[in-house]
Amino acid sequence: MAAKDDAMRCAGKLGMVASVAANLITLAWIIRRRYFGGGKGGSGKNKEEEMSMVEASTGKPPVTHDSIVNLDHGDPTMYQAFWRGTGDRATIVIPGSQTMSYFSDVAGFCWFLEPQFETEVRRLHRLVGNAVEEGYHVLVGTGSTQLFQAVIYALSPAADGTPMNVVSPAPYYSSYPSVTNYLTSGLYRWAGDANTFNSDNCIELVCSPNNPDGGIRKAVVKSGRAVHDLAYYWPQYTAITEAANHDIMLFTVSKCTGHAGTRLGWALVKDKEVALRMIKFIELNTIGVSKDSQLRAAKILRAVTNGYDLSPAVEANRLFHFARRQMVERWNKLRAVVAATAIFSLPDDLPGYCTFFKETIASTAPFAWLRYEKEDVDDLEGFLREEKIMTRGGTRFGADGRVVRVSMLDTDEAFNVFIERLASLT
Amino acid sequence: MAAKDDAMRCAGKLGMVASVAANLITLAWIIRRRYFGGGKGGSGKNKEEEMSMVEASTGKPPVTHDSIVNLDHGDPTMYQAFWRGTGDRATIVIPGSQTMSYFSDVAGFCWFLEPQFETEVRRLHRLVGNAVEEGYHVLVGTGSTQLFQAVIYALSPAADGTPMNVVSPAPYYSSYPSVTNYLTSGLYRWAGDANTFNSDNCIELVCSPNNPDGGIRKAVVKSGRAVHDLAYYWPQYTAITEAANHDIMLFTVSKCTGHAGTRLGWALVKDKEVALRMIKFIELNTIGVSKDSQLRAAKILRAVTNGYDLSPAVEANRLFHFARRQMVERWNKLRAVVAATAIFSLPDDLPGYCTFFKETIASTAPFAWLRYEKEDVDDLEGFLREEKIMTRGGTRFGADGRVVRVSMLDTDEAFNVFIERLASLT
Repeated sequence: MAAKDDAMRCAGKLGMVASVAANLITLAWIIRRRYFGGGKGGSGKNKEEEMSMVEASTGKPPVTHDSIVNLDHGDPTMYQAFWRGTGDRATIVIPGSQTMSYFSDVAGFCWFLEPQFETEVRRLHRLVGNAVEEGYHVLVGTGSTQLFQAVIYALSPAADGTPMNVVSPAPYYSSYPSVTNYLTSGLYRWAGDANTFNSDNCIELVCSPNNPDGGIRKAVVKSGRAVHDLAYYWPQYTAITEAANHDIMLFTVSKCTGHAGTRLGWALVKDKEVALRMIKFIELNTIGVSKDSQLRAAKILRAVTNGYDLSPAVEANRLFHFARRQMVERWNKLRAVVAATAIFSLPDDLPGYCTFFKETIASTAPFAWLRYEKEDVDDLEGFLREEKIMTRGGTRFGADGRVVRVSMLDTDEAFNVFIERLASLT
Repeated sequence: MAAKDDAMRCAGKLGMVASVAANLITLAWIIRRRYFGGGKGGSGKNKEEEMSMVEASTGKPPVTHDSIVNLDHGDPTMYQAFWRGTGDRATIVIPGSQTMSYFSDVAGFCWFLEPQFETEVRRLHRLVGNAVEEGYHVLVGTGSTQLFQAVIYALSPAADGTPMNVVSPAPYYSSYPSVTNYLTSGLYRWAGDANTFNSDNCIELVCSPNNPDGGIRKAVVKSGRAVHDLAYYWPQYTAITEAANHDIMLFTVSKCTGHAGTRLGWALVKDKEVALRMIKFIELNTIGVSKDSQLRAAKILRAVTNGYDLSPAVEANRLFHFARRQMVERWNKLRAVVAATAIFSLPDDLPGYCTFFKETIASTAPFAWLRYEKEDVDDLEGFLREEKIMTRGGTRFGADGRVVRVSMLDTDEAFNVFIERLASLT
């Protein structure tokens, strides 16, 4: 694909290229702009109304039977179906004069944290039981990506002043190496697979359930500093088996409620000095975090928690029940088609007793780590691209090319077309 | 001040400490938490309404006759008075299911840019005439701070692979050195005052009107790559004398409309490759920019531009007229009190013919660069802190300690208490 090659070339020296650009350029070739920003005016609105209208984007264009299905990113548009039904409970209204200041909480621990967002984060963890929040500082970041960088800044450099090594057991999230290395910082550097790293002088990223393969992880390096990326430790993806109480835990609204465009993550941090250094990073990087996003996220998290107090106790009010059912249905479909084709394999499901659902459940990971089991294809990402299915190849995760990561979080339409196409491969 | 010293120590190795932390800790000592997050429930709301309420923070606490006046940051709360009068025209409503995707414009040049925000940016520049937008790529960033980092990333390293030198003529914005150096990148490094930098192999930051002193600037390094920080090139601060058409121009909503908490900036970039590298940086740094902030900023900018079409043509509809009058009044008061005390001085105003207001106007800069003219004080920041006036000392800007930067953009209450206290000094 020439467009992809061009994109790879112009991305330059990093070596590790996030596939966002490459795949988007491919898509852009095919999709016309008409999906965006069209349809202004008309339709009986008066002048004042029309003047004040702002149209939001709609994300990726709808999938059709023939179109490209982009499952490269974990774009959580599956959740839109839930949020279309929540009405005012999840709608945020921000008047022009609100939250204009840089400051959210001058007297608080984190000056740019909206107090209401912190309140809702703590309430949600108490509802779900997936993490201990008492005794932890809550920090907010522009997605957990910014918080990840804040953490490695806070824990670096090594005691002897050399760059701190950053490791994670393969297969690891493809962004860890690129985000660690893009500025060639003197404070830290990517040092690869934690399983083969032969020193304890490191920061270990422990992603559990793991992106890309859904595995349940514990730190493998004994005396390194562990950072727990718990973006997917929610009951729609895995059994909640304990309230996690690690020193540093990262979460994101994207994968919990589906609001990726809001770019909001949070961290629970035990140690005060580490938290202060993380705040310093976010001050220097972006002078705090969008208050509009924080207010919206507070409203969204509040709707999730309050939904469990509403009658009737139905899926339309209960996000995790809605999302869990969706994930179970999707995994059942995927496992059936993979069994039928007999050329692919998937990781085992990992049953566990879930303290939230109060029953034993199988894991239903946000990504399928799909392996090709025959000898004739070395580049499964490329093979699937020929079928107009965009995925992310295993080499990006420190694995081999015969495995890919496939998002399970896209719209029903995209997922179903993916299943149809997979079924046609034998 | 012990609290400040503590803050300085724990900020660690940077040497250059953003004063956010230091001054906030001082403030936090004095202010009680009751200003934030209080007053829930009650007041006749029904249960459903109460359940869905999210309270926004109010920024810094109100200033009283005896309290600390924090004019360290350019916190643009002056503008709240305008936005309290704009009603629905500037109110954004975001339903729970909107803009959940990572993507704003898959087929566009910048995949995370909301098309409506781009439209409003271009409309505003056409209204004000402060920059050429035709033929430029519009990029969005989490404040112009993120865009600044995106630019230096895009233009680095030097051709021989060594770190690119980043310079600006003193006095320069105090964040330039710290934001350039905090990650000790191998791609770029802060190299100080452009006036004394003896090579052309550099990126020169040209801030005009200049933060901190309001000066009108042109690039001083002949063959360096110039980056124009035009955060303050709006008619409330300076005469608009031409539509700027530099290669790379940075703007921010904060200083144009007063919405600092929205953390939104934009860049106009001529060269496609530079723009693509900047997009790459923002992808890696924060996977795009908050869509909630972009939608809100689009609505706000739209209200500004459309305000100039409304009848009657009064200040309540015309942001730049409102802000200009405020700034003129404040500068008149400040110049009068500075003349009366006879111990301070200020930069000259810089009259010019403004193509927006269609008359010759004096500059009314967003910061006062206030110099102490007697011999007995070397640390003017410390001297004013004793008077409970928080400012930012000259050494932070590559100047001397007998000058400070004072924000002119705070609330009327804060500004007036500042003027009273200044008047009492002789």
